[in-house]
Amino acid sequence: MKRIFFDIDDTLFPSSQFAEKARKNAVRAMVEQGLGYREDEVYSKLLKIIRKKGSNYPRHFDLLCRELGVKRPARYIAAAIAGYHSTKTGILPYPEVKKVLSLLKKKGYKLYVATNGSSLKQWDKLIILGLAPYFEDVFVSEEIGSEKSAAFFRKILKKLRERPGNCVMVGDREEKDIFPAKKAGMATVRVLRGKYRSGKSAADFRVRNLKPLRDMIKKL
Amino acid sequence: MKRIFFDIDDTLFPSSQFAEKARKNAVRAMVEQGLGYREDEVYSKLLKIIRKKGSNYPRHFDLLCRELGVKRPARYIAAAIAGYHSTKTGILPYPEVKKVLSLLKKKGYKLYVATNGSSLKQWDKLIILGLAPYFEDVFVSEEIGSEKSAAFFRKILKKLRERPGNCVMVGDREEKDIFPAKKAGMATVRVLRGKYRSGKSAADFRVRNLKPLRDMIKKL
Repeated sequence: MKRIFFDIDDTLFPSSQFAEKARKNAVRAMVEQGLGYREDEVYSKLLKIIRKKGSNYPRHFDLLCRELGVKRPARYIAAAIAGYHSTKTGILPYPEVKKVLSLLKKKGYKLYVATNGSSLKQWDKLIILGLAPYFEDVFVSEEIGSEKSAAFFRKILKKLRERPGNCVMVGDREEKDIFPAKKAGMATVRVLRGKYRSGKSAADFRVRNLKPLRDMIKKL
Repeated sequence: MKRIFFDIDDTLFPSSQFAEKARKNAVRAMVEQGLGYREDEVYSKLLKIIRKKGSNYPRHFDLLCRELGVKRPARYIAAAIAGYHSTKTGILPYPEVKKVLSLLKKKGYKLYVATNGSSLKQWDKLIILGLAPYFEDVFVSEEIGSEKSAAFFRKILKKLRERPGNCVMVGDREEKDIFPAKKAGMATVRVLRGKYRSGKSAADFRVRNLKPLRDMIKKL
């Protein structure tokens, strides 16, 4: 094993937890500006919009204001965005992550990120979390040109001129991390964290945090 | 005098100073991520782009990366945005502002904001500065449908069903605050702060900060 690939969300930091907190802070900030609705009403309306439009839709708060019939929404959208972003100052990786990544680098492994999403958003997370310096490179679906799939991983292997047998993928989602990496011939470690922590897994190993990673990788 | 209108930038908080600091933090964050240029080179290139495109152009950092020939810009744009926004946590109104606004409200004056720009951005400033609660209403050129001009102020007076003789405009820019408000028949106070602090003024009063405001308004 030479190269280890990591997913970001719910693998390196508690993404689901952060999103919930950030959305609640956004809603509170709107209500504090005099929106005229209760926080729980606004929050459940926001969740409906997110379910309908997907979490990457960039105008949740605009739509929320429109559905609430707000006539001059700028004040509330500005408050929501400021509330959402204020949550970022408290965002940290899972407690063991930096220590484990340091150790793996010291032992000579090359570390990468392999993630779905927008390059800008995923880089933003790595920079704010202070994790960018640990990785040789960061592969985001937007730049690769396809969402995580066997093809996604094969493109990365080609770029690195590496055989899949020398690589491990570490992630929390069976169908986005484990299944496609395995199909591309890589070893896999499933991290049982965040909202996708349950369910069957075909991964070589399953872990509750990243601490056992080094010992496992030696066995692969 | 019943109603007092305030400009935001360089009237209620040190906007020019903030922008410089935020841009420098953005550039530093890009260089820290391994951009491969010196901070002063990148900063002067950024200033050129801002001069050319205006400070409200939303893609300064994209353009900066393109001009520097960066092949995969997401990392550096994300760093720049995070660096820029990190500056916001330290942003505060000029030291006397909250005290003066409180006093004026207590004395029965109705306070408003009259500002050029995007509603979202101007609300963002008021919320982050903690100034939103002081104002009865906020008039932004984007919503009013014209930049600060005699027509801009006349529209506001019509909305409030108020005579110009009962109103004072307080701002730092002769041609955007003083001249058009005067033309609409309002009294004017020029604040000598920020990068437009010098130059002649036709304002009824000129002040170095907002402290003398109450006494002046009594004289008008």
